[in-house]
Amino acid sequence: MTIQEALEKLQGYEKATFALNHATGLMYYDGATIAPKGTAELRGSTLGELSRMGYELTTAPETVEMLRTLMENREELDPITRRKAEELWRDYDRTHRVPVEEYVAYQELSAKSDAVWHEAKEKNDFALFEPYLQQMFDASRRMAGYWEPEKAPYETMLSTFERGLTVAQCDAFFASLREKLVPLIQQATAHADRVDDAPLHRNYPVAIQRQFSDFIMDVMDIDRDHCIIGETEHPFTTNFSRDDVRITTHYFADQVASSLYSVVHEGGHALYELHTGRELARTCLGNGVSMGIHESQSRFYENIIGRSRAFCSVLLPWLKEHFPAQLVDVTEEQFYRMVNRSRPSLIRTEADELTYCLHIMVRYELEKQMFAGTITAHDLPAAWNRLYKEYLGVDVPSDREGVLQDSHWANGNIGYFPSYAIGSAYGAQYLLEMQKDLDVEAAVRSGKLTAINRWLEEKIWKYGCMKDPVALFESVCGPFRPEEYVAYLEKKFTEIYEL
Amino acid sequence: MTIQEALEKLQGYEKATFALNHATGLMYYDGATIAPKGTAELRGSTLGELSRMGYELTTAPETVEMLRTLMENREELDPITRRKAEELWRDYDRTHRVPVEEYVAYQELSAKSDAVWHEAKEKNDFALFEPYLQQMFDASRRMAGYWEPEKAPYETMLSTFERGLTVAQCDAFFASLREKLVPLIQQATAHADRVDDAPLHRNYPVAIQRQFSDFIMDVMDIDRDHCIIGETEHPFTTNFSRDDVRITTHYFADQVASSLYSVVHEGGHALYELHTGRELARTCLGNGVSMGIHESQSRFYENIIGRSRAFCSVLLPWLKEHFPAQLVDVTEEQFYRMVNRSRPSLIRTEADELTYCLHIMVRYELEKQMFAGTITAHDLPAAWNRLYKEYLGVDVPSDREGVLQDSHWANGNIGYFPSYAIGSAYGAQYLLEMQKDLDVEAAVRSGKLTAINRWLEEKIWKYGCMKDPVALFESVCGPFRPEEYVAYLEKKFTEIYEL
Repeated sequence: MTIQEALEKLQGYEKATFALNHATGLMYYDGATIAPKGTAELRGSTLGELSRMGYELTTAPETVEMLRTLMENREELDPITRRKAEELWRDYDRTHRVPVEEYVAYQELSAKSDAVWHEAKEKNDFALFEPYLQQMFDASRRMAGYWEPEKAPYETMLSTFERGLTVAQCDAFFASLREKLVPLIQQATAHADRVDDAPLHRNYPVAIQRQFSDFIMDVMDIDRDHCIIGETEHPFTTNFSRDDVRITTHYFADQVASSLYSVVHEGGHALYELHTGRELARTCLGNGVSMGIHESQSRFYENIIGRSRAFCSVLLPWLKEHFPAQLVDVTEEQFYRMVNRSRPSLIRTEADELTYCLHIMVRYELEKQMFAGTITAHDLPAAWNRLYKEYLGVDVPSDREGVLQDSHWANGNIGYFPSYAIGSAYGAQYLLEMQKDLDVEAAVRSGKLTAINRWLEEKIWKYGCMKDPVALFESVCGPFRPEEYVAYLEKKFTEIYEL
Repeated sequence: MTIQEALEKLQGYEKATFALNHATGLMYYDGATIAPKGTAELRGSTLGELSRMGYELTTAPETVEMLRTLMENREELDPITRRKAEELWRDYDRTHRVPVEEYVAYQELSAKSDAVWHEAKEKNDFALFEPYLQQMFDASRRMAGYWEPEKAPYETMLSTFERGLTVAQCDAFFASLREKLVPLIQQATAHADRVDDAPLHRNYPVAIQRQFSDFIMDVMDIDRDHCIIGETEHPFTTNFSRDDVRITTHYFADQVASSLYSVVHEGGHALYELHTGRELARTCLGNGVSMGIHESQSRFYENIIGRSRAFCSVLLPWLKEHFPAQLVDVTEEQFYRMVNRSRPSLIRTEADELTYCLHIMVRYELEKQMFAGTITAHDLPAAWNRLYKEYLGVDVPSDREGVLQDSHWANGNIGYFPSYAIGSAYGAQYLLEMQKDLDVEAAVRSGKLTAINRWLEEKIWKYGCMKDPVALFESVCGPFRPEEYVAYLEKKFTEIYEL
């Protein structure tokens, strides 16, 4: 095959794989938002078939020949095509090692497992989910074994979601966080009475919260022609391409900050996807590069920007326009403290910025133990509850508020959680760098996040998957320094809790 | 290939085509309901690719060999497999005559055309849509030429949506309707003051209308675990399988009957799909057999049941529970007359039962002329307006309320409209047959449509595509007798308007 032929083949291959991914993504989105309840099995069957088509396309002899031709001539390719060839080869190299029937069965199992998890969570019935959970861990370990037979499976899973991340790095990172944060959390807890967020739990009608979500998306400068907001049990963002991004949230009448900050968080994911380079669109490079970089965007918007004094000062007047009675007695300073109230708690997605990483550590420890085989799915609830007591000092009253709270394991996203913590920590260094180029506080107080968006687009978003995540981060911030994140948290919460 | 091998291949083929159809269907549904505005081109590209995969699957040598093997041995097959082989062969025989690039381009054009139609309708800008409309007619005629080169293209289109239906039959049917109905409509119009439906145009909050839709779906005994209701500009029903059916409606605060009867109409479509035989599910036989039979279900529920005196007598008290103030002064008899108010009008989907078929005739005439080449898309608005004046006596004030009102042509559903009229007429004969087996009025007055559903399931729904539409209808009602439909309308409207 000539290079020219390979390049033409590549176009057809990209169109076809894009279409299959688009269809698959839409099917997940539909399932997680509006699909009728009794349709999970049907969806699983179709997802299995679509994955079979993807597998057959990726492992077809003519695809392999095309990729081989490109790889053999990679020095002659332009940088984008070269990167595509490398990424697609990597994907082929992983995929073809998995037997097709196992590959399809895994997709079907994931869909089924997700549906059972929904039901189990609703009914607070861990026993219902337990066999699926075990199967998902087993399947995940087996996949890792196929992909990189020479590597420890959990290492493979970690680097699947965050290329380059290792257990050794995570262990060191989490140990340093724990050492510094646990005493700080204990001090803040001892002075819990210094922050009262009762006004955030008054009655905030959901219909008006919905309007406020639209308003916030405007503030974030999110292009609504290419991004909608749906409702779901467990907020997430998905994207079919930079032209079609979907965020979701969940409303509670007595928790106005919950949906508000979930929209800011998911909005961060959406902005990243909406601004990946146009020249990369609908190719394997036209997405956010990794979960860690993705979470570094979403959590940067949610916490470092969204829970900053500057953002609170513009947010409160807007909120008062929508909810005048509920917030009549709240000052700017009170509001800033309220949305930053720190308290060891049960639910990760509702956790405050200070205690958040401890939630991640619980999951990380359990994933390692599951992969090591020292515990099974049956042991997970007790192990979960034990670690929550140990790390956060809280008693878990039900599995629904415990081991059943997250969808990740049900969906096979095992090894994913650490990227949340890494991503959170990255944010502190973004802020330091950003402050060198622009007056971040003034930008936030302007009432539009446009200047911040442009900085991140230029430094990070536009690259899509052109750079590996570590290289991308380092190109912006230099080496990762978790101590910056610890310093950021210490400063912020020492001040809020007057420690 | 042995029969056994062919039967195994058939299973794989069915799973794969089902998955592609499921993904395609979901993508259309999403596009018509919640997708962000700026995503039509993206969706068109993916729909094109999915259709390419379907084409390649259908025309693959191993598929053809499989189908040939089954067809050669069709006498040995069980009735379901035999029917599948015949239908799939027919599908292959049509598909492989169309060049693949033209097939894909047609799918992409449809998606694009639909998006442009939406915009053109919103802006009341026919010129925007005109080139797409012409292209859709041209493409449709070209497709018909490929499918059945020996036949007049419009005949092919008619029988694509209603197998067996011919121009001669339509001409005769419409002529007889026109002869009888036009004088009746003129009489009713002369006594228009005898029915006043002003109370239906008071303020009916959309949020409560939404609740009432859920209530109506319960009355119709629609399984909500497998059927949801969405919102869209132009109500439709779609189904991915008997396990996942989606209906849509559109709410107007000042038109309570509009969404109510659109839900009953779409509910009729949904019931049909939800009750196709379980043994046919996820195969080429697991759908309603034709548009005519489909419309005969939806319009039977909407009009013959839904606008009957019996249904009105149970409906009004329910409505009064939801909207006490709005309907306080309305009696049962008034309500019955209101929802049957007849008036020549502009919008087909809002037309009353008596004048409905004249709207269809306009479209039928124009489709014939477009296919004959005696007019072009450019001429359509004027031709439309002329026929509305001639048939219905109304002046069309804007293209939005005229030629741009329906999505069908934009989507390539050309030759589809006559099935609405045929389907409407079928209903009168269903009623006569049903009355032989059960007390229809008592069944309706019971407040649940279960008995009626069971009758239709047994006679029609469960067969899916096992019988051709004409054979299916005749197995229930004997030969088609349009005069029964005319008699039904004459009796009903003579009484309502006291003619």
